[in-house]
Amino acid sequence: MISWKNLDTLTSYKTLCALKNKVDLARAMAGEEGAARVAGYHAPMAAGLTYYYAAKQVDEDILGALQALADEAQLSGKYAALYEGEVINTGEKRLVLHQLTRGQLGGTVTADGVDKRAFYVSQQEKVADFARKVHAGEITNAAGEKFTTVVQIGIGGSDLGPRAMYLALENWAKQNGCFHMDAKFISNVDPDDAASVLKGTDVAHALFVLVSKSGTTLETLTNEAFVKDALRGQGLDPARHMVAVTSETSPLAKSSDYLAAFFMDDYIGGRYSSTSCVGGAVLSLAFGPEVFARFLNGAAEEDALAKSPDIRQNAAMLDALIGVYERNVQGYPSTAVLPYSQALSRFPAHLQQLDMESNGKSVNRFGEAVNYVTGPVIFGEPGTNGQHSFYQLLHQGTDIVPLQFVGFRKNQAGMDVDIQGSTSQQKLGANVAAQILAFACGKQDANPNKSFAGGRPSSIIIGEQLTPEALGALLAHFENKVMFQGFVWNLNSFDQEGVQLGKVLAKRVLAHETDGALKAFSELLGI
Amino acid sequence: MISWKNLDTLTSYKTLCALKNKVDLARAMAGEEGAARVAGYHAPMAAGLTYYYAAKQVDEDILGALQALADEAQLSGKYAALYEGEVINTGEKRLVLHQLTRGQLGGTVTADGVDKRAFYVSQQEKVADFARKVHAGEITNAAGEKFTTVVQIGIGGSDLGPRAMYLALENWAKQNGCFHMDAKFISNVDPDDAASVLKGTDVAHALFVLVSKSGTTLETLTNEAFVKDALRGQGLDPARHMVAVTSETSPLAKSSDYLAAFFMDDYIGGRYSSTSCVGGAVLSLAFGPEVFARFLNGAAEEDALAKSPDIRQNAAMLDALIGVYERNVQGYPSTAVLPYSQALSRFPAHLQQLDMESNGKSVNRFGEAVNYVTGPVIFGEPGTNGQHSFYQLLHQGTDIVPLQFVGFRKNQAGMDVDIQGSTSQQKLGANVAAQILAFACGKQDANPNKSFAGGRPSSIIIGEQLTPEALGALLAHFENKVMFQGFVWNLNSFDQEGVQLGKVLAKRVLAHETDGALKAFSELLGI
Repeated sequence: MISWKNLDTLTSYKTLCALKNKVDLARAMAGEEGAARVAGYHAPMAAGLTYYYAAKQVDEDILGALQALADEAQLSGKYAALYEGEVINTGEKRLVLHQLTRGQLGGTVTADGVDKRAFYVSQQEKVADFARKVHAGEITNAAGEKFTTVVQIGIGGSDLGPRAMYLALENWAKQNGCFHMDAKFISNVDPDDAASVLKGTDVAHALFVLVSKSGTTLETLTNEAFVKDALRGQGLDPARHMVAVTSETSPLAKSSDYLAAFFMDDYIGGRYSSTSCVGGAVLSLAFGPEVFARFLNGAAEEDALAKSPDIRQNAAMLDALIGVYERNVQGYPSTAVLPYSQALSRFPAHLQQLDMESNGKSVNRFGEAVNYVTGPVIFGEPGTNGQHSFYQLLHQGTDIVPLQFVGFRKNQAGMDVDIQGSTSQQKLGANVAAQILAFACGKQDANPNKSFAGGRPSSIIIGEQLTPEALGALLAHFENKVMFQGFVWNLNSFDQEGVQLGKVLAKRVLAHETDGALKAFSELLGI
Repeated sequence: MISWKNLDTLTSYKTLCALKNKVDLARAMAGEEGAARVAGYHAPMAAGLTYYYAAKQVDEDILGALQALADEAQLSGKYAALYEGEVINTGEKRLVLHQLTRGQLGGTVTADGVDKRAFYVSQQEKVADFARKVHAGEITNAAGEKFTTVVQIGIGGSDLGPRAMYLALENWAKQNGCFHMDAKFISNVDPDDAASVLKGTDVAHALFVLVSKSGTTLETLTNEAFVKDALRGQGLDPARHMVAVTSETSPLAKSSDYLAAFFMDDYIGGRYSSTSCVGGAVLSLAFGPEVFARFLNGAAEEDALAKSPDIRQNAAMLDALIGVYERNVQGYPSTAVLPYSQALSRFPAHLQQLDMESNGKSVNRFGEAVNYVTGPVIFGEPGTNGQHSFYQLLHQGTDIVPLQFVGFRKNQAGMDVDIQGSTSQQKLGANVAAQILAFACGKQDANPNKSFAGGRPSSIIIGEQLTPEALGALLAHFENKVMFQGFVWNLNSFDQEGVQLGKVLAKRVLAHETDGALKAFSELLGI
């Protein structure tokens, strides 16, 4: 029987709190003890990835306490409840089914009289069929010419995830002969965003993917109008250049304004929608449906690993619990995501939404205020770039920031150069290994300005290469991590009531129904 | 007489600490009191910008205490010492002269027997002359054809600032008939970065700007070799396609490997170098030297405003002091930068380096540990995108994150669309106005999940349009803010010893001189 309880009511949490500052990381990671930790402290992931937590502030006692917390908080049971189709999104009274887009983890989930797994698969097949016809030149522009570019119009989860995934696989696809179409993205209501993208696009050969679940997202509808103006301005029929990704009940669903419509539903939140046709349409058009299927396979394999109740075999659950220890016991307010892969340049921005929008909340799933801190601030940039930027604060600042590294043994593009006896790829790997130890162990110097306190915890996910499978596994790992943390904090990680008030007030500004400071600021901004 | 003292030794700081939580922001920003605050609480900036702090947690008492702190910490005197050429960067025993690249704030500054202002101007003129010849087709590739693209090779300050400035003005330049060349950037040692940029570049018509002050930056030299390989692979002579930006004493300075060399020096830190030829070469080639000069003018005008000892007339100083109040008195660990302008998409990444690398330190300028927190974590994305991402946590998370908004009345590209009775630009402005009030005042609801506590402080810089002058003013504002905060915290904001240890360890990995955990991680990463 599942019971939903606040973190501070759990016995195991009190045990964990007593273990504050227990591990002297600088000492633990030094010498042969450090090597033994690297050999022992890792958990398997899908697609050949491994999660290493040797440089986190854990030991056998803390891992024991985290396992007890996982058990007492019923994390495995709650995950099962989710994938078996219970109403986990209590605020909006919805199921949470993004995992079903990539696999069948439990029994058949039926909602609204439909087998939801079958529904998601059917939409993927529709997308795949459409993409193949576009690539084969069976679906063309009005002049019978092939489409060469796909432009996604969407914001938030309809933008950040798909964009990050596209950038992550662009070089890989080019290198592996499965690059079909350039993809571009229009998101911001700032008209300069659409203007800039359209200026660089051959719109006569562009296919636009309009993504809005509700069909009412202000930014997206505004940018749709912007794009339609541009198409008409070139004598083109917008209906021949646009597809919609939306819910079956939205105003976009049955419209003749689109070449095709692909459906998602209310059981998949925007920030969890990269594996639905929100990501599927643009990624299948860009790289082909086979690549998208491989991406889903990686995610599905990772989802299956997340079922284990043993935290040492469940990287997502362990990562989540270590994060709770760092946030609630150690008191660290933020976490940096640092992929040593230029292809993952926008992956931190996607995780920023995924994590902060899911768990940046002050009330539990029953709407009661909680007495502990929840989701941290998430930020990050790729290494080695970040080393020449904000790492100064990470090494020597007054606050400790836990770190999540990602690294691969092989690059994607297959080009490299040997300078001073090593390749660029080797330099990249050497830098991330060096950073882990520099953060953990620090270094004493007679000059305090050149001293490094160390004791700064990090984990790293290491893989062979950033393939579609590895990307799917990486994405699912973080989705599941966020889900498990939400369970521990007793939050509903699947609504986002915090975005509503701004929308309401913005409408009031546009209707000129304001007074006081809001009116004053509106006038200063020329409205 | 200037005296450098730790913040916690200042009498005015104790006064300020006693004013913790004094302002009830939700109440202060409501109704006519809120409108009065907007009317009264603003400070002038250059290029028609204004800094509004009505929605910060300040009142007359707190502003009085901040003024006392500014006076006791001798902020104006320390700024004067800096621009008059004292050795402000004590750790590295260097002057700090980036302001001289854009104007003469005080007397003549002589170093190494040279009038430094004259030196920087001479380098700008060299850059301007070179750029004009490239644009005129007087400097061409070996086939006598014009260069069409400029590619900057650099990392950290040689990348983030120039890249952010380029993106900020790209649309404006296209709209205003001064767009000469596309600019691209290669930074990461990940070979996929260079491979990806080169794949999309017509290298036969590309001019590469190699930027490294020391001439020894590992990433940059590696990427130089990568680019030279690519040029030779197409039968091109690299020396006909490359210029260097470096110091006069670097190995790159007198090399025949470059078409030209432009000089900076040790008195300008990388993160402060956008207005030196580090930014000047690429921006002058992309947009013309006249646009770069306008950018410098905006910065110079803003620098001059920063001389005022009156915090209500000195936006940078006031912004800095409010930040200290938020960090040290209110205890907020991070700050978000949220420009409502897609053109500023990478401006937060630049500020992240500028701020976190300058003030992410635990020792004062004499190398003694400080007993208070210093630089916060800085992160941000453009609005309205962020609204559909991490704003959930900003509105309803358990930690308060102070916010810095930026907004303009006009867009850059001059294209817009009217939907539902308003333009995109109006929607953009309405959203930022709405957010300020939503954060400040919140909203009570019978359902706690739909309640907003408010009390979340923000400032906004508002301008007419993001022009070169406005961008220069914006950049200088934040540079000066960071400088003033460093003065208050008694830090040396101009060194970065925290980046050294990682470099040393990475070299050890590449030389296979490691043991323990470092060796173990190196092997896992394939080195």
